[in-house]
Amino acid sequence: VPAVTPHGRSRGFIVPIGGAEDKTRELKILHRFAALCGRRPRIVIIPTASRKEDTGKIYQDIFLAMDALEAPVLAFNDRSDCEEEFALQILSDCDGVFITGGNQLRLSTTLGGTSVAKLLRKRNAEGLPIGGTSAGAAIMPEHMISSGDEGPTPRAGMVTLAPGLGFSNKIMIDQHFSQRDRLGRLLAALALNPFAVGLGIDEDTAAFIGPDNVLQVEGSGSVTIIDPAHTSLSSVPDAERGQPIHFTDLRLHLLAAGGRFDLEARKALL
Amino acid sequence: VPAVTPHGRSRGFIVPIGGAEDKTRELKILHRFAALCGRRPRIVIIPTASRKEDTGKIYQDIFLAMDALEAPVLAFNDRSDCEEEFALQILSDCDGVFITGGNQLRLSTTLGGTSVAKLLRKRNAEGLPIGGTSAGAAIMPEHMISSGDEGPTPRAGMVTLAPGLGFSNKIMIDQHFSQRDRLGRLLAALALNPFAVGLGIDEDTAAFIGPDNVLQVEGSGSVTIIDPAHTSLSSVPDAERGQPIHFTDLRLHLLAAGGRFDLEARKALL
Repeated sequence: VPAVTPHGRSRGFIVPIGGAEDKTRELKILHRFAALCGRRPRIVIIPTASRKEDTGKIYQDIFLAMDALEAPVLAFNDRSDCEEEFALQILSDCDGVFITGGNQLRLSTTLGGTSVAKLLRKRNAEGLPIGGTSAGAAIMPEHMISSGDEGPTPRAGMVTLAPGLGFSNKIMIDQHFSQRDRLGRLLAALALNPFAVGLGIDEDTAAFIGPDNVLQVEGSGSVTIIDPAHTSLSSVPDAERGQPIHFTDLRLHLLAAGGRFDLEARKALL
Repeated sequence: VPAVTPHGRSRGFIVPIGGAEDKTRELKILHRFAALCGRRPRIVIIPTASRKEDTGKIYQDIFLAMDALEAPVLAFNDRSDCEEEFALQILSDCDGVFITGGNQLRLSTTLGGTSVAKLLRKRNAEGLPIGGTSAGAAIMPEHMISSGDEGPTPRAGMVTLAPGLGFSNKIMIDQHFSQRDRLGRLLAALALNPFAVGLGIDEDTAAFIGPDNVLQVEGSGSVTIIDPAHTSLSSVPDAERGQPIHFTDLRLHLLAAGGRFDLEARKALL
């Protein structure tokens, strides 16, 4: 369950990005995220998902060039790092957090359940904007897609779930959505968790999810929204591994930049 | 508009197959199609879409091995072939027609509007089962997807429509659906024709559409059914070529073998 938002304060934006966002031209998505963090913000970068040495530095340079006051990189490499007072203090004082791409299972197994994870949930519930790209997007929901097979047809056993950081329990996220042909695995994930709305986020595309749980799309691709609330028939419990499943009465919405969707009312907005 | 079914007779089955149906093991789809044609049937094969010499022969051998009485191949190569009395007589006397794969634009430009096309529509309206695979499936509806780009995200201008043979105006069909990543182009096609239900048919998978317009899935893959009847927002008219489009409030159903869908009520059936 997500942390409780204290009375009189609103939850911070959650900004899942589908990976491969523009970092060299207009930087629309990253600019918009930085703007959410305020004037001269301190934006903490968490590169834990990545195995590349320079991942944190790349975002640090970008946010500093955008007029961030500070952009410290907190490289949590193991679970004990996530209990360091030093790091918790920086997270307590920052104006935004950005989680990079890489392997979401590395993120969730390093951060999950630690003081850092609890603090991130608490601060987001109190208003802190949190953005993340690729693995950093996948990890945002309560239930995370940790791996799966490609292809548009949902098949039994094609997706593996794991606990995410739990900033929201209303959504499940898949990223690099068009580019890696992930409709089937998002559908298979929703068949296991039909309480959530599925967001399939293309590369260079983001869902800016506001305190009111209205999301708005930014970037050059689409967000594919799948709402299983009205599903009446899924054959997941009975299907053999690898078999295609029945899954009916889903609502499907495709939104490009500017498109909005109310996650409470489960309705696209003009 | 499809040909009118005479009073007291029911329309014949329409059996679009997603291509690459099993021809060597159980032949589930082809067996079931042949069974619809009756005992010791005459099944006419139309290989016009294909440029391969042996396409007609392959199906001829299969249907004869299944106990068909005759399986003549009618190779309509140009439009004048489609006015030959000899061919029209064979089509008048047969118990089923099977249209092979290849290039659906070759099929539609050769057959479209000819006496053969008119006779096929009339005989189907009176009860003749017509099956087709790949291009032979694509051509069945009133509006046919003739070509398009790959990828799950619908983009303006990514699909080209052309007139089909018009056995049904209730559906649009895309084939090799999972294998060639065609969700985007089926969605883009439906954005142009939101009156139809979209059927995305996987390889080795078929939709057996009965006289009552209830379809049942057969084969090893899925049929993806997209119903745009309730769409409230499509940005197609305003989108620039190549831009992703908004397209909302679609109903989505995934059905595997045995799954049924009522195309009149637009409802999945248990």
